[in-house]
Amino acid sequence: MKLTPEQLKEFDALGYLVFPDCFSEEEIAVLRSEAEAIYASNRKEVWRETSGAPRTAFAAHTYNEAFAILGSHPRLIEPLEQFFGEPVYMHQFKINAKAAFEGEVWQWHQDYGTWKRDDGMPEPRAMNISVFLDEVMPINGPLMFIPRSHQQGTLTAGHDKATTSYPLWTLDKATVTKLVDDGGIVAPTGKPGTVLMFHGNLAHASPPNITPYPRKIVYLTLCAVSNHITKFNRPEWIAHRDFTPIVPRADDALLQYARKARHAA
Amino acid sequence: MKLTPEQLKEFDALGYLVFPDCFSEEEIAVLRSEAEAIYASNRKEVWRETSGAPRTAFAAHTYNEAFAILGSHPRLIEPLEQFFGEPVYMHQFKINAKAAFEGEVWQWHQDYGTWKRDDGMPEPRAMNISVFLDEVMPINGPLMFIPRSHQQGTLTAGHDKATTSYPLWTLDKATVTKLVDDGGIVAPTGKPGTVLMFHGNLAHASPPNITPYPRKIVYLTLCAVSNHITKFNRPEWIAHRDFTPIVPRADDALLQYARKARHAA
Repeated sequence: MKLTPEQLKEFDALGYLVFPDCFSEEEIAVLRSEAEAIYASNRKEVWRETSGAPRTAFAAHTYNEAFAILGSHPRLIEPLEQFFGEPVYMHQFKINAKAAFEGEVWQWHQDYGTWKRDDGMPEPRAMNISVFLDEVMPINGPLMFIPRSHQQGTLTAGHDKATTSYPLWTLDKATVTKLVDDGGIVAPTGKPGTVLMFHGNLAHASPPNITPYPRKIVYLTLCAVSNHITKFNRPEWIAHRDFTPIVPRADDALLQYARKARHAA
Repeated sequence: MKLTPEQLKEFDALGYLVFPDCFSEEEIAVLRSEAEAIYASNRKEVWRETSGAPRTAFAAHTYNEAFAILGSHPRLIEPLEQFFGEPVYMHQFKINAKAAFEGEVWQWHQDYGTWKRDDGMPEPRAMNISVFLDEVMPINGPLMFIPRSHQQGTLTAGHDKATTSYPLWTLDKATVTKLVDDGGIVAPTGKPGTVLMFHGNLAHASPPNITPYPRKIVYLTLCAVSNHITKFNRPEWIAHRDFTPIVPRADDALLQYARKARHAA
């Protein structure tokens, strides 16, 4: 997948892009059922809400074939190779559950704030590109972005270890209010298969999910290889230390896998 | 304000009605600033979130002139008199804050479940009619309704005293899931001055507000006079014991008050 000049311009201005219908339902269905199986397992990579519901599963591309394919899918890898002008490696891979009724808040933060402080990543030359596994609606805990906030650089943040089970460098209320005064808030929604890419300094959050509708999203954090991390404070399955450039697979790799899986079932 | 036959039919089917532009910005602005003053006060009627932010202020129509006018406003009283076919009294009056960044969840519930169990209200012949003081958006903790759920009668509920500072008879996940399978979820939004009326058995909830946008809504709970409560477990400023029929004021009473207040300032 190649970004157009218009898309690059929009990204520069707003800090994010939305790609509807990037993956087909046939491709997504297999990921959705594999994600449920991972959440039901007892792996250390599966973090839970205080209620016990799944919150996020790390590093599934290292132990699950369907997510391994997604982790080197050309529709996700190529736009970021293009944007950074060099090969990328996988800094982090997670499947966020935002479980029905149980999914808790992700506080306001910039991703690069954590990658810099915790992992010693030199520059914000890494980015999330995410894939909706369920329909994301206004009501089931969508991501909220503050457009244009990526232009502010890396802002002062506090290390919040208390609000949820996952420690995060978060922005305070005065900072968020100022950013929102300037940029507003958008909450991109869409069918399963929608893809979002957003700048490492784009301020974002997501509210709890109080509905019966689950809202699973896969996040690939792709980092320019020359910008690899320099501190190894977090477990390697949270902040990877394998800086090998990802070689994109064939565009139909996930589709072929889904068909094989269906025939085997 | 008189409900049309079409509106009555829609209400019977869905359990709620939305009235955009019911109050003008001039009328709403005075209520908004009075509400902020009430939240800043130390009255026992003001309940707070665990963070200390305001959650709800009860009975403001008994100690604040602007809210006294709203509590007998013909645009709110007359539709319910018409619907119940008799005069109404004020069972409960609250200004819910859903404060910026701090507003917590209201769990899934039916209002009549609480009025029946706690207050001994004989029949679901009472209803909330609510007025938006701020803009209600998809992102700042809107009310979520399950359309048609009012047709299920009063459902089994549990008394949740733990989730928030306010005890509530709440529906369990299986019940909510079944209701949503049948009716879906709607989250009515609108400018300040929008009015919602919804059946006492309509299942509803509202998520936390993680944005810098406050979301104040005033709720008048109006009960048919012949259906007054029979148990007095809750303080009289939460579940009123004055069953005097409300006499609607002139339609411009709030506007006149707002103009006088502005001249006095």
